[in-house]
Amino acid sequence: MPKLQIIIASTRPGRVGPAIGTWVAEQAAAHGGFEVELVDLAEVNLPMFDEPSHPRLGNYSHDHTVRWAAAVAAADAFVFVMPEYNHSFTAPLKNAIDFLSAEWRHKPVGFVSYGGMAAGTRAVQALKPVLAALDMVPVTQAVSIAMVGQKISSDGQLEPDAAMDTAAKLMLDELARWTTALAALRTG
Amino acid sequence: MPKLQIIIASTRPGRVGPAIGTWVAEQAAAHGGFEVELVDLAEVNLPMFDEPSHPRLGNYSHDHTVRWAAAVAAADAFVFVMPEYNHSFTAPLKNAIDFLSAEWRHKPVGFVSYGGMAAGTRAVQALKPVLAALDMVPVTQAVSIAMVGQKISSDGQLEPDAAMDTAAKLMLDELARWTTALAALRTG
Repeated sequence: MPKLQIIIASTRPGRVGPAIGTWVAEQAAAHGGFEVELVDLAEVNLPMFDEPSHPRLGNYSHDHTVRWAAAVAAADAFVFVMPEYNHSFTAPLKNAIDFLSAEWRHKPVGFVSYGGMAAGTRAVQALKPVLAALDMVPVTQAVSIAMVGQKISSDGQLEPDAAMDTAAKLMLDELARWTTALAALRTG
Repeated sequence: MPKLQIIIASTRPGRVGPAIGTWVAEQAAAHGGFEVELVDLAEVNLPMFDEPSHPRLGNYSHDHTVRWAAAVAAADAFVFVMPEYNHSFTAPLKNAIDFLSAEWRHKPVGFVSYGGMAAGTRAVQALKPVLAALDMVPVTQAVSIAMVGQKISSDGQLEPDAAMDTAAKLMLDELARWTTALAALRTG
């Protein structure tokens, strides 16, 4: 089975990212089309980009880069679980992306974004040109969680509604289709 | 005189940002309309955003945030000296912006971008919605340095051409006009 990596893109104390990432991982496991891995950028704990060579060369000089490259290379598809800071993506997510190059190439990405009235969607739109630069494919079917604070229980769990469950299923189906389609480019 | 802060937005080993920032600082000093300060994000050395409260509250819990807030609050206008990573802005720049809120508000920003054929301009465009979210004003007159590797001398200095000098002058003139215009909002 292809490997789906679910990446939690916020790292600040008090974030809701892990609650949402856990729900996405459960949905993906129930979907059945993927081997599922949950990756928390707070645990990956990369420094600010510190490689002297361009990532396109794959000439990594730090152990943290070699480890991150191996983790991303092992995945066939991604879901980014992402909030919106100042109408765009978070620095930890951009930093984790910029560290690598070929490891991302020709792989699809689904988005589970969250926020206030805009549901984090401006961050998703801001990220699409970045993904295009890496020859990644953004999947249109997304989960967009508005007013996320009202959807977290007192014990810190996400309380999904039926629309979110349906949107996750559509996103995972489309990720599976793209994963198959892009495999030809990755071996070609 | 208003204070112009020139912020070097890349931090990686081997970057050309300091060479370009030094040239911008010289141009700004020669312009005469500003007190000029050069700020290197590699020296500021912020961690990934780690404040538990939203920056809008100004309720900072870390010394590094308090120091950065004081530095930005003291400035009246900015020039971002910025490369483009994967067609967008760098993580260190987004991180430094996201740490604060009111300290940026109602201040103008000029751009000196650099890169290959696109001269870093896609990163500038990606940043404009972020600046809008903070009620900052991006100045249209910019310095866009294409094929920057060919403009750095063997001893690591920027070798500007006449077009760059002219563009810098126009940018600084417009920054001065916006700084005056926005002062009314900041005291109002």
